[in-house]
Amino acid sequence: MKEAVVLLSGGIDSVTTMAIARAEGYAVYALSFNYGQRHAIEIEKARHMARVLGAKKHLVLDIDLKAIGGSALTAMIDVPKGRGSDEMSRAIPITYVPARNTIFLSCALAWAEVLGVFDIFIGVNALDYSGYPDCRPEYIAAFEHMANLALKAAVEGAGKIIIHAPLLSLTKAEIIRRGIDLGVDYSLTHSCYDPGFDGKACGRCDSCLLRLKGFREAGACDPIPYGTV
Amino acid sequence: MKEAVVLLSGGIDSVTTMAIARAEGYAVYALSFNYGQRHAIEIEKARHMARVLGAKKHLVLDIDLKAIGGSALTAMIDVPKGRGSDEMSRAIPITYVPARNTIFLSCALAWAEVLGVFDIFIGVNALDYSGYPDCRPEYIAAFEHMANLALKAAVEGAGKIIIHAPLLSLTKAEIIRRGIDLGVDYSLTHSCYDPGFDGKACGRCDSCLLRLKGFREAGACDPIPYGTV
Repeated sequence: MKEAVVLLSGGIDSVTTMAIARAEGYAVYALSFNYGQRHAIEIEKARHMARVLGAKKHLVLDIDLKAIGGSALTAMIDVPKGRGSDEMSRAIPITYVPARNTIFLSCALAWAEVLGVFDIFIGVNALDYSGYPDCRPEYIAAFEHMANLALKAAVEGAGKIIIHAPLLSLTKAEIIRRGIDLGVDYSLTHSCYDPGFDGKACGRCDSCLLRLKGFREAGACDPIPYGTV
Repeated sequence: MKEAVVLLSGGIDSVTTMAIARAEGYAVYALSFNYGQRHAIEIEKARHMARVLGAKKHLVLDIDLKAIGGSALTAMIDVPKGRGSDEMSRAIPITYVPARNTIFLSCALAWAEVLGVFDIFIGVNALDYSGYPDCRPEYIAAFEHMANLALKAAVEGAGKIIIHAPLLSLTKAEIIRRGIDLGVDYSLTHSCYDPGFDGKACGRCDSCLLRLKGFREAGACDPIPYGTV
């Protein structure tokens, strides 16, 4: 059976990516991170989704990105709320975590090498990417090239690392439709950058707004509860 | 003043690299990792050297690579001893930590972006590299290319990430001579993969053997104590 490492955050994109990998016949090693994010509730959602989608193994890796700081997702900086989509796409927001995808993909590489796996899935997408530079196709291609020079297994010719980014050119609405077709239960996912104490999504951060817009455009109903604003 | 992030493990190569960065006029942010290595004593050496060499700040980042496994440096696998240099160069040894330099450089990238720094120093070298693929010039070039597509600061044109690897084409003997010229006190460094309970180097692992050969060829005396074999 084909095997892959899938980066799984518990949000719509990574969950849909894992469902796609499963549908393509991969046995999945799911990898999540406890990196000091303020929305650590996503780790519980990831654990749940890893079980529901039949992960062969789920590893939650501890890495203290809070010590590095520089993001509203790990530091005590307010998450921006109520921004329009024009405003979101104009500049890279402070919810950007410096080099996060690079760090996550690097750890996925390490685990892939230990497992003898060459396929890695990541749920980045370039359209509704909210301005993050490490969600663009040229970045993914450059990472893949670097990976094949870094790893013992690749250098010794045992295989070639492939970074799969199946959502790269999809809109959020297309991602959601794809997931619904694959039977994904989005009531178990989490997207909000700034959930309340009850774990409910705020409905006003960039991530919530993109999610709600996605469901609206997909003609579907978002099944998660939102907190009162 | 020019500023740089320097990866500092407390071994000969990274310490010499930091001394070179200081001699070139950089204020240094030193970055070390507590990654579950069996030779965690190197972190204490790194703390000491960061002070001695005048780091502006020293960050020790926790990342649990033990959970990923796959290396004699993090797992309960015996470190090979007493190998000749022919044997060392023939194959990548089990002391190789999968994707380690990629993970370390990725974290350095993140910190550099937060600090507004674009220069990163790493003490890899391609000659006495003991067979690690992520110590080769083509790997460093590929990482640098990827980094400039990953970071907000680079993408927005604030600067260009440069990965400095000043030891890349030096032999261990040349590195040691360079360090001695710069006044580095190698009695404060640690290289052994498998130190005894007293912290003393074993003198027989690849890292000790390369170090001892380096000092011999540099016509210098290794100032650290070795345990009785």
